[in-house]
Amino acid sequence: MRNIALIGFGEVGKSFIKLLQIKKDLLPKNTKLKYIIKRDGGIYNKDGLDIDEIIKYTSSNNKIQNHPLWSDISFKDILKNKDVDILIELTSTNIINGEPGYTHIKGALENKINVVTGNKGPILLYYNELKNLALKNNVELKIGCTTGGALPSINVGTKDVLGAQVTEIIGVLNGTTNFILEEMLKNKVEYKDALKKAQDLNIAEKDPSLDVLGIDTGIKMAILSKVIWDVDFEFDKLDIKGITDVKLNDLLLDNFSGKKTKLIGRAFYLNGNFEFEVKPISIDKYHPLYFVDGKNKGVHYKTDILGDITVTGGASSPLNAAAAILRDLLNITK
Amino acid sequence: MRNIALIGFGEVGKSFIKLLQIKKDLLPKNTKLKYIIKRDGGIYNKDGLDIDEIIKYTSSNNKIQNHPLWSDISFKDILKNKDVDILIELTSTNIINGEPGYTHIKGALENKINVVTGNKGPILLYYNELKNLALKNNVELKIGCTTGGALPSINVGTKDVLGAQVTEIIGVLNGTTNFILEEMLKNKVEYKDALKKAQDLNIAEKDPSLDVLGIDTGIKMAILSKVIWDVDFEFDKLDIKGITDVKLNDLLLDNFSGKKTKLIGRAFYLNGNFEFEVKPISIDKYHPLYFVDGKNKGVHYKTDILGDITVTGGASSPLNAAAAILRDLLNITK
Repeated sequence: MRNIALIGFGEVGKSFIKLLQIKKDLLPKNTKLKYIIKRDGGIYNKDGLDIDEIIKYTSSNNKIQNHPLWSDISFKDILKNKDVDILIELTSTNIINGEPGYTHIKGALENKINVVTGNKGPILLYYNELKNLALKNNVELKIGCTTGGALPSINVGTKDVLGAQVTEIIGVLNGTTNFILEEMLKNKVEYKDALKKAQDLNIAEKDPSLDVLGIDTGIKMAILSKVIWDVDFEFDKLDIKGITDVKLNDLLLDNFSGKKTKLIGRAFYLNGNFEFEVKPISIDKYHPLYFVDGKNKGVHYKTDILGDITVTGGASSPLNAAAAILRDLLNITK
Repeated sequence: MRNIALIGFGEVGKSFIKLLQIKKDLLPKNTKLKYIIKRDGGIYNKDGLDIDEIIKYTSSNNKIQNHPLWSDISFKDILKNKDVDILIELTSTNIINGEPGYTHIKGALENKINVVTGNKGPILLYYNELKNLALKNNVELKIGCTTGGALPSINVGTKDVLGAQVTEIIGVLNGTTNFILEEMLKNKVEYKDALKKAQDLNIAEKDPSLDVLGIDTGIKMAILSKVIWDVDFEFDKLDIKGITDVKLNDLLLDNFSGKKTKLIGRAFYLNGNFEFEVKPISIDKYHPLYFVDGKNKGVHYKTDILGDITVTGGASSPLNAAAAILRDLLNITK
């Protein structure tokens, strides 16, 4: 029997409980979702929530806050009640101090609760500490969703190249900047207009800084670097540049010569020498990530003995991100 | 402690023992290679062969048959001596009856010896039987090298999409046909001339049938289908067409319209409905495998909830194939 608490109930969380319904045959029998916790409270049933009922309830535009089981329950109650063994942590990313995710993940691991998270903040800032905490408490910390959602970037860069040494990681890991750069060229508009369109389409956020300044790409590349190389560095000191200075004219010139500008992350590690940069780069059609367009993502790994391996796809969407969470969950329960 | 027997000592086998030397820190301490067996005999040391010495010996163009430890030892002695727990099976592929690989793999599994193989014949013909034998004897059968060598095609199609259902597999899995088709276009020659060049360069074999008739692609696609879908079919009845009828003129027309002809394998499985074909197809630049050129390979998976995932690379070479064997070995020993 497996008992799950879900904390964070945005689009990915909602898709995740739909997957718990659709894919229940893949989970151990009697797997129970006991908690859905949000910032201001949550719903709880010690015998397991009725997932069908909650999906029905929330799809009818009912606020979860109006659900009969809603109370001022919080994360602390999960630790107090000691009745779950898996926490799905899906609160918002905060890269200043990792909160509230850091407190949730740390608290869970210390209480021997496995954690699956898509929250990049605490992983970026405290990966080593949290990984060691998981090891010490003999539980799992699964973070596959933090480095490209559905794209199996961590698996490919670790398990799938077992025995080989990754020497370089090159990534196109941000769909919003992909969209803006494509939009500029397609409609022959400058950055600001393309950004506005992305915002109108809900592709870019109102405050698009994390995406357009390259920080999101930087975070994902930094997490991959930490997981694959166990290397330590200060994120603030990394060389990260976004797409805000890209001019339409550059893209037109690119296009004329059969090239494309993409926001590329590149990390290199060999014999203690660590290099890292994120910036818009003009790449030609022989570049392995040339065709990673739209919402797709891609990572290219150079290795010593397995050649180069590229994995692409896993387009961003709440369902795909939730499927990445499910993948990590199944790796714990199987 | 792990004790290994290697059977089959061609280019991949030779690269593999070099990897045992270079990557020995990744293996459990006191891992021993006790046997290297070929068709006509082998070398054996119950305390473990001196790998450095054998690498030195064989790199000086000495035939292994002249090695002081050479005797008429055979696979049967491995079973008789009961002193290994891992067999690396690298004899030649035979898709008529799977021999001698089938006897080796079956014998090993029945004697509770884990097996890592790159031999496609027995896996194509007897995968279900051998997989069940491994399960029954509580040992592992690792076949990652049979479906694209270094390309982690099986991992990506199974572990990396855990929870999702793969509905379609599209593959470019044969470097020789890639080369011939590219060569035809590059030098404006017909199939026969391009084949001759591939043979002169040792890219195609003297009897190129397996590659150019699409059989090699078909085998890899068939194994992927069996592993991913647990589907049963007769290989002989599959729809497999090679590149022998491709005309230069077709490729020129392709090229003119920005397309490329590639030997594509495609398998589809949903609700018991299985479709399978291998044939040259003209694909445009939006096809996920458009840029899988030269010795590279690629597989594209369509899934229900994780979107589409494509993995490419892992160029064919004895070292890369040996690295795929090492990867499977480390998955057993870790």
